[in-house]
Amino acid sequence: MSRFFTERLRELVPYTPGEQPRDMQYIKLNTNESPFPPSPAVLEAVARESGRLQLYSDPNCRNLTNRLAELYGVSPRQVILTNGSDEVLNFAFQAFADEAHPLAFPDVTYGFYPVFAALNGIPYEEIPLKEDFSIDPADYIGIGKTIVIANPNAPTGLCLSLAEIEQILQSNPNNVVIIDEAYVDFGAESAVGLVDRYENLLVVQTFSKSRSMAGARLGFGIGSPALISDLHTVRYSTNPYNVNRMTEAAGEAALRENDYYMQNCRAICQNREATAKGLRQMGFEVLESRANFLFARSEAIGGECLYQQLKQRGILVRYFSKKRIEDFVRITVGTAEQMEILLNTVKKILEETTP
Amino acid sequence: MSRFFTERLRELVPYTPGEQPRDMQYIKLNTNESPFPPSPAVLEAVARESGRLQLYSDPNCRNLTNRLAELYGVSPRQVILTNGSDEVLNFAFQAFADEAHPLAFPDVTYGFYPVFAALNGIPYEEIPLKEDFSIDPADYIGIGKTIVIANPNAPTGLCLSLAEIEQILQSNPNNVVIIDEAYVDFGAESAVGLVDRYENLLVVQTFSKSRSMAGARLGFGIGSPALISDLHTVRYSTNPYNVNRMTEAAGEAALRENDYYMQNCRAICQNREATAKGLRQMGFEVLESRANFLFARSEAIGGECLYQQLKQRGILVRYFSKKRIEDFVRITVGTAEQMEILLNTVKKILEETTP
Repeated sequence: MSRFFTERLRELVPYTPGEQPRDMQYIKLNTNESPFPPSPAVLEAVARESGRLQLYSDPNCRNLTNRLAELYGVSPRQVILTNGSDEVLNFAFQAFADEAHPLAFPDVTYGFYPVFAALNGIPYEEIPLKEDFSIDPADYIGIGKTIVIANPNAPTGLCLSLAEIEQILQSNPNNVVIIDEAYVDFGAESAVGLVDRYENLLVVQTFSKSRSMAGARLGFGIGSPALISDLHTVRYSTNPYNVNRMTEAAGEAALRENDYYMQNCRAICQNREATAKGLRQMGFEVLESRANFLFARSEAIGGECLYQQLKQRGILVRYFSKKRIEDFVRITVGTAEQMEILLNTVKKILEETTP
Repeated sequence: MSRFFTERLRELVPYTPGEQPRDMQYIKLNTNESPFPPSPAVLEAVARESGRLQLYSDPNCRNLTNRLAELYGVSPRQVILTNGSDEVLNFAFQAFADEAHPLAFPDVTYGFYPVFAALNGIPYEEIPLKEDFSIDPADYIGIGKTIVIANPNAPTGLCLSLAEIEQILQSNPNNVVIIDEAYVDFGAESAVGLVDRYENLLVVQTFSKSRSMAGARLGFGIGSPALISDLHTVRYSTNPYNVNRMTEAAGEAALRENDYYMQNCRAICQNREATAKGLRQMGFEVLESRANFLFARSEAIGGECLYQQLKQRGILVRYFSKKRIEDFVRITVGTAEQMEILLNTVKKILEETTP
């Protein structure tokens, strides 16, 4: 830290992304990436666009915005595109939360929420998950705070129903409710259909998971035109050219190839169910995931220990040293072949651990 | 504006980027882009990388950071890469300025500085340029504020010498001095060579202008390891994957092809001098630019009027409605052919205007 660093941020604890080791080739099941490459149409679109890199990107991303709005059945004025969904989350925290509108989110959820809150000096309340690691919607009814809920939640993979989300929206009419749907394409119900009925709803999604574009950085928000307009004000005051030309072109091509990606999602859901079954047969408790990952624990081996043992054998998963979930590992669902190797490796580790 | 928008940002006036009209094909001399396309090596690198978009980018951008550090003769710990140089500027404002360390910058300069200050709630002082539109270094000696100076300045194109910058650095040892060198490759002296001697110096540069990558969004900061570490803390609390895979690959390739880009810069400097001469012959006052644009005014025609007339004839330039500079137009320096068309068109406009 330099002696120039502002007092306000000296205690800031940044987000820790999943590790990206370069010492060897791992089966990478630790950052919820898709095991499937982008569609060839994405590569072609990027190649075409890269010859025009000397020109600024369209600060309004009109082509992609229009196409996305059409696919999701909303107006282009209800869409904002960002450099990954982390950016739209940060914009929304800045725009819709402050001392007078503190944040509320679960105690076990995406680890970036408390970081964004601290960065922006916004007070926040972490509401404990229930004993079974699900979110109790009753905890959010009429609390009069700016609410952020990942649905499905991470790292649990558990969902709220749309009816439960509506109750939260209705009972907090003077606060924005942010539903972070990073993993929604793997089996949860999206709240996008509610944006015309609830002016306090902001839905956040990403191309990183279901659309195989984690490395391209593209996220988006959908909400009422007024909410989206506020987010554009923040965006135009931060980084108007936040989405680069190649990423916009890749996103457009990905939407044209929607069937390919939705087919991949179905394959991942199948692999998820098969893997969950395999883990349960080995005695694991596995939460009922609607995401592209599984959250599982075994009485036979701790989370960190299983993580270490798997890493030694060339498989990366993620564990969290946080209380309540330290026994778990979060396993990204990959291809059927990858999951077979995972199950076989876990089996061997358990055999060696419990003689 | 929604009724949910935080009180704090309701008066925020966002930055206005140069227009990007799509009604017809213009000779685009309004946003200081390079007229030269990226090197073919950049296209190849992007094409290779686009097949791996399902994987997150390296949050440390190690490959590009190492190469950039080598080229600029600093350690990788002295480099931060960002989604355009606007992002590193915003990070630096957040990290190194606050109520106790207000900002100071010229009254006529890059229009984003007051926006970043307002976004982050930082007080700022705008110090008037001299009568000749140059920065008076004496105005910044020992002022004890966080200083931001574009060198060359925009939209004037005028420079401070390294000796003058050193005086400012030496006389404000308890404040960070940000030198924004977006246009430095077109003939100004870079302050990068000073970073090891002044721990309060942050140099900001971009790939947008001299390296034909405005549409790829890549900027960087160079400073002492402690300053850079603070900026990484802000980055990891905002958007750790801020630079996408394709942009990192493009940046690496661009640095390998440094000769190509530096040759383009020399061509632009030649075209700049020829254009300045042509404009002066037509009676324009043209400031002594060391950037890839010219700032010029004529007693025969106002800035907005000349802009309008040029636009009607298919040439885009930029004018600013701001006091003191409303008579000027800012003309990006393009190819020799483009500048010939510009000069001929201006000549015709003047002939029609002054019968």
